[in-house]
Amino acid sequence: MSDIKAALRRQHIETPSWAYANSGTRFKVFAQEGVPRDPYEKLADAAQVHAFTGVAPTVALHIPWDKVDDYADLARHATDLGVRIGAINSNVFQDDDYRLGSVTNPDPAVRRKALDHLLECVDIMDQTGSDTLKLWFSDGTNYPGQDDIRSRQDRLAEALSAVYDRLGDDQRFLLEYKLFEPAFYVTDVPDWGTAYAHCVRLGPKAQVVVDTGHHAPGTNIEFIVAFLLREGKLGGFDFNSRFYADDDLMVGAADPFQLFRIMYEVIRGGGYTSDVAFMLDQCHNLEPKIPGQIRSVMNVQEATAKALLVDADALAAAQAEGDVLGANAVLMDAYNTDVRPILAVLREEMGLDPDPMKAYARSGYFEKIRTERVGGTQAGWGA
Amino acid sequence: MSDIKAALRRQHIETPSWAYANSGTRFKVFAQEGVPRDPYEKLADAAQVHAFTGVAPTVALHIPWDKVDDYADLARHATDLGVRIGAINSNVFQDDDYRLGSVTNPDPAVRRKALDHLLECVDIMDQTGSDTLKLWFSDGTNYPGQDDIRSRQDRLAEALSAVYDRLGDDQRFLLEYKLFEPAFYVTDVPDWGTAYAHCVRLGPKAQVVVDTGHHAPGTNIEFIVAFLLREGKLGGFDFNSRFYADDDLMVGAADPFQLFRIMYEVIRGGGYTSDVAFMLDQCHNLEPKIPGQIRSVMNVQEATAKALLVDADALAAAQAEGDVLGANAVLMDAYNTDVRPILAVLREEMGLDPDPMKAYARSGYFEKIRTERVGGTQAGWGA
Amino acid sequence: MSDIKAALRRQHIETPSWAYANSGTRFKVFAQEGVPRDPYEKLADAAQVHAFTGVAPTVALHIPWDKVDDYADLARHATDLGVRIGAINSNVFQDDDYRLGSVTNPDPAVRRKALDHLLECVDIMDQTGSDTLKLWFSDGTNYPGQDDIRSRQDRLAEALSAVYDRLGDDQRFLLEYKLFEPAFYVTDVPDWGTAYAHCVRLGPKAQVVVDTGHHAPGTNIEFIVAFLLREGKLGGFDFNSRFYADDDLMVGAADPFQLFRIMYEVIRGGGYTSDVAFMLDQCHNLEPKIPGQIRSVMNVQEATAKALLVDADALAAAQAEGDVLGANAVLMDAYNTDVRPILAVLREEMGLDPDPMKAYARSGYFEKIRTERVGGTQAGWGA
Amino acid sequence: MSDIKAALRRQHIETPSWAYANSGTRFKVFAQEGVPRDPYEKLADAAQVHAFTGVAPTVALHIPWDKVDDYADLARHATDLGVRIGAINSNVFQDDDYRLGSVTNPDPAVRRKALDHLLECVDIMDQTGSDTLKLWFSDGTNYPGQDDIRSRQDRLAEALSAVYDRLGDDQRFLLEYKLFEPAFYVTDVPDWGTAYAHCVRLGPKAQVVVDTGHHAPGTNIEFIVAFLLREGKLGGFDFNSRFYADDDLMVGAADPFQLFRIMYEVIRGGGYTSDVAFMLDQCHNLEPKIPGQIRSVMNVQEATAKALLVDADALAAAQAEGDVLGANAVLMDAYNTDVRPILAVLREEMGLDPDPMKAYARSGYFEKIRTERVGGTQAGWGA
Repeated sequence: MSDIKAALRRQHIETPSWAYANSGTRFKVFAQEGVPRDPYEKLADAAQVHAFTGVAPTVALHIPWDKVDDYADLARHATDLGVRIGAINSNVFQDDDYRLGSVTNPDPAVRRKALDHLLECVDIMDQTGSDTLKLWFSDGTNYPGQDDIRSRQDRLAEALSAVYDRLGDDQRFLLEYKLFEPAFYVTDVPDWGTAYAHCVRLGPKAQVVVDTGHHAPGTNIEFIVAFLLREGKLGGFDFNSRFYADDDLMVGAADPFQLFRIMYEVIRGGGYTSDVAFMLDQCHNLEPKIPGQIRSVMNVQEATAKALLVDADALAAAQAEGDVLGANAVLMDAYNTDVRPILAVLREEMGLDPDPMKAYARSGYFEKIRTERVGGTQAGWGA
Repeated sequence: MSDIKAALRRQHIETPSWAYANSGTRFKVFAQEGVPRDPYEKLADAAQVHAFTGVAPTVALHIPWDKVDDYADLARHATDLGVRIGAINSNVFQDDDYRLGSVTNPDPAVRRKALDHLLECVDIMDQTGSDTLKLWFSDGTNYPGQDDIRSRQDRLAEALSAVYDRLGDDQRFLLEYKLFEPAFYVTDVPDWGTAYAHCVRLGPKAQVVVDTGHHAPGTNIEFIVAFLLREGKLGGFDFNSRFYADDDLMVGAADPFQLFRIMYEVIRGGGYTSDVAFMLDQCHNLEPKIPGQIRSVMNVQEATAKALLVDADALAAAQAEGDVLGANAVLMDAYNTDVRPILAVLREEMGLDPDPMKAYARSGYFEKIRTERVGGTQAGWGA
Repeated sequence: MSDIKAALRRQHIETPSWAYANSGTRFKVFAQEGVPRDPYEKLADAAQVHAFTGVAPTVALHIPWDKVDDYADLARHATDLGVRIGAINSNVFQDDDYRLGSVTNPDPAVRRKALDHLLECVDIMDQTGSDTLKLWFSDGTNYPGQDDIRSRQDRLAEALSAVYDRLGDDQRFLLEYKLFEPAFYVTDVPDWGTAYAHCVRLGPKAQVVVDTGHHAPGTNIEFIVAFLLREGKLGGFDFNSRFYADDDLMVGAADPFQLFRIMYEVIRGGGYTSDVAFMLDQCHNLEPKIPGQIRSVMNVQEATAKALLVDADALAAAQAEGDVLGANAVLMDAYNTDVRPILAVLREEMGLDPDPMKAYARSGYFEKIRTERVGGTQAGWGA
Repeated sequence: MSDIKAALRRQHIETPSWAYANSGTRFKVFAQEGVPRDPYEKLADAAQVHAFTGVAPTVALHIPWDKVDDYADLARHATDLGVRIGAINSNVFQDDDYRLGSVTNPDPAVRRKALDHLLECVDIMDQTGSDTLKLWFSDGTNYPGQDDIRSRQDRLAEALSAVYDRLGDDQRFLLEYKLFEPAFYVTDVPDWGTAYAHCVRLGPKAQVVVDTGHHAPGTNIEFIVAFLLREGKLGGFDFNSRFYADDDLMVGAADPFQLFRIMYEVIRGGGYTSDVAFMLDQCHNLEPKIPGQIRSVMNVQEATAKALLVDADALAAAQAEGDVLGANAVLMDAYNTDVRPILAVLREEMGLDPDPMKAYARSGYFEKIRTERVGGTQAGWGA
């Protein structure tokens, strides 16, 4: 049990700056009170999540949403708040020029613009000390024939190669895949196989990131996790959950058993290290942002605790014997355990309140930001 | 063949005012040149679609997007342009009050507000002469436990009943269902069964509308069409197409064979009459709006022409004999026929250009609106 | 807690005779040792499941798989073993005559044959004292055009009506729906809406049965449960679980959270009574049959215990306040509780071993049947 | 047009020996009259398909279903009938030993047995002159925890490597992937990415085969085709069609537009050569076998003809201009063309009847086999 607590104590879950901003669906973005108006305020909110959970010390940025004049100053601000800058997320999907794609656009001028943005993101990595660039391309087409599938792969490969070459020795990029949305016919990086093939060609500084909401119905995500770990190509996770498409709900909310299975494969495959980035990527459309992040962090912690509880020896023995029910039972025993008491003890040992949700509610932080953050423009997708 | 042309000549496809406005995904709305700035300009664009196709004489409105001071004036404007006002579409999803639902909201004050809007839509029907109210509710929940599934059905039933009672003798409402989005866990009207059950309880003025993009993967839509027609409960269609979720692509673009099968069931089931409304409900995110609508109307025409070509006697004979391949071949013979020549002839007989796309392109209308419609605020979702 | 234990004590889960027989996929049926060779041996195995769990007192039969000369004798045999005959399941899918359908076949002679079988099943209900007939139709088509969708509905309605009229005062039938398989284009009862509409027309003795594996991807099953309970049309469940299609895995194995949500809606909707039949319908292709059933019964018990633990008052309060995270947390608190200790205590109070799996393994029953049941033909799908 | 006819004339579609045998679902295999009783009779039937279509000169074998004492004799028999032996399909899924897997089984003795079978298939290649081995593994697990995902990959890699090393200079293997079935939780080769990664490690004689029915809902198959062609790793197709899962319907029956898009990418990507194997892999459960194959071959021909009709220059021009509707229209113009007349002319030029279906029906072959093939055991899955 002390081993498990030690493993949980060193857990590191990164929260994204955009989770603190307003978000929504194509139908409506519901505004919330107290939402940050700039990257500095986002970091302040993220620092709250770390303050109450103790395992969320870094914050991912999104460029240009988090564009500032002085990134070194922003990084210092983070440090002052007790957190650090995490992954830099590029954004080549919110400019009118990108209507037909960014790095895969048929127009070379648009491709150049997109690539320049990606290279700028590496500059920002240098300035903030971030070692990870996350690349998600919304690129694709809506109609058969609209553009040439293969040519777009050629353009993609060219852009990835240029970014790869720009990376410093201690930097890497994570290539994200997604089945669909916003492209509705072809998505240029639709599945892990596509991301994997590009990363293999490029080399060790290119890895795949698994967003748990980006798969076709019925996809076995933990299989992908196990496979990528075996190949040394799992760079990290964008955690969230979904019932239908890319719903971006709180991780663990839709299928906690799946999250447990994923974390089990992470641990079994040697991925529970700092080499794999565990990031949240969610939209709190209806629920309040900071508590939504705290709950999400706790959900990952609980799934991890259960995965750590799996009796590896008993499991291996049952598997070797071909004992289908017995092997399944070993896994389920861990899953069915209520790990909340273990985590409460761990938090107390870390000097934290055992109940982060209640502690945050009592802290008065929300009342503070609700009254202070009046006027200005709330941050949101695209702002 | 003359029967088929006669049937095609009387076809009636309704275009939606919002198809002429800017639209997009949650990631980005790409603005286009020449987009209308008010309902009057939307009607003008819709009139172009009718002018070049001859089968799109009505235009659906969306309230409050198409709110005007004087609906009678708007209706006259339509008539002047050669079109008419079609269905009135209610909108109870774009106000901050509707964060947790409209007519199913746990808060009775919000429910009242939503119901008042629906009743106002009936007022607008009276003023515009529209006989059809389309009800789509985005209502639902994102998380298990968020609200009580059954209580929400009670609230829904109450609202529907109030609207039903308000309808005039020659008015009806069409209840729309949708699997998910924007709600991500429960949607209060998620499938045809739910819409059907509510409509059966209410009576003949309540019918189901089938949006072709609103189903779970693998759903056989033509079965639903056949079933609802058998029950006398098919009120109409919201046509569009999709590869993944509710992509809102041009109807017939993703799966033209499916559209043909749907139109075949419409005809076979006696639904090719004015009792069933054939409406488009699409988003032209990337492609230009007016040509997108023209192409969509043409796609429905082509599918209809093919469906009309099915040799009903040969099909019935093969089916009765249990001749699986023979019966399938009868259907496929019609589908594989190139019906574009028939439609070209029909258009010439109707005094139209045989190629609506080229004729529109030549007309200079786009150049006109691109230069005239500068300044002001372009219409879009939520405007 | 005593209320919860009382509710769990009166739980009634029916196991199916065919779960004890060999089963498989279209690719292979793997034979197991000790598998029953006739309905009497199946009942003996089912009695073991009840002996060790205390909540599985009835056994569903499948006709003709469980055809015997003297059903009264079979029923007595059941009683001697401490169990009873439950639902009678009709089978109109395993005769060469049913290639193009049973009650919806284009050939009236085949329809008559199928109907006769259904009526014979009611005779067997009379003879065994069963009050429930379960109707599942594999009927459908593989190719567009193969047969007429609507005519098949007419034929289905006619057959259902004839069966309905034959039911005694205390008998009912449950109509099962299924998305696909073995039909691959149209299935004649593909969804709950179809089953519901037929049942509503017929009257109170016709109800819908929900097989948890028979839905399109993304379908919210607990919504259907809540809706059918509200309409008084939920007749029962065929429990199993799946990751992809109709995998027929052990209930609760693929998504235990979903099973919990379903049981929560059952309880919330007043369905936790003898009016709703809780039946297992699974295939133990790889794992041993009797332990597979015991584990499945336990999985349902655990989901039920968690659902009973939901703090209804706290949930209602949070829902009324629109507290999204708070309401979700009330549900998750119950789900995250480890209920195995409660169930162990309950079993001891019922005079049972607290660990049914180990107790069965120790009992020597399997060794007994493995050696005794040599020779003869093992029962299986179609036998 | 003469270019197109020339391309169509050299088309080569391989039919599978098992398509002529009885097949079905797990619920029922419906027997048909005249079905072959041995591999020699299967080849005779396949020769009919070639005789009437002129483009199906090879026949895939399935071992052990097509096991004979003298493969050289079988190959001569084929030649006598005017056809040749095509790909050898291994079968490691129909022996009781394979309950928990074949090459990925936890038991090394079972793995050895499976590997020996694969190596025997290469022997048969040597004896029949076949240059292609098709590897499909049903291997996987049904329950979480049942076996170790990663260890199974290690075992798979080991077996593939052993087979690869055994291949002759002019031989290759094609690795097939499948989302699920018969395994219901993990499938060891579930997607193209997995097959691709293994093939890349092994070298040029290992390629991926795309079965059009083996994907998750919403998967863009033509993207995979384009991608694999770009990587030089597309080895061939198993053609069939489906509405839901792996329905194994006639290719082109469920979504002819998809088949057209696939053939377009084949041609555009340089895959319309003898390096890519175009094989059918279907089950004619309801329809007669030989006409089912003839229709399927014709469906592939029609899709190919349409794909060849695409105006590549016009398409490239529209794509370069970002003309979404224009580019889509170029593709649709080809798809909407009725190519049956072209194919009829081609057949006459090839000395064939322009209507293969009617010509076969008139030929009297079916009446012949129906009367001659009485007695003996019909071939089927597993026989």
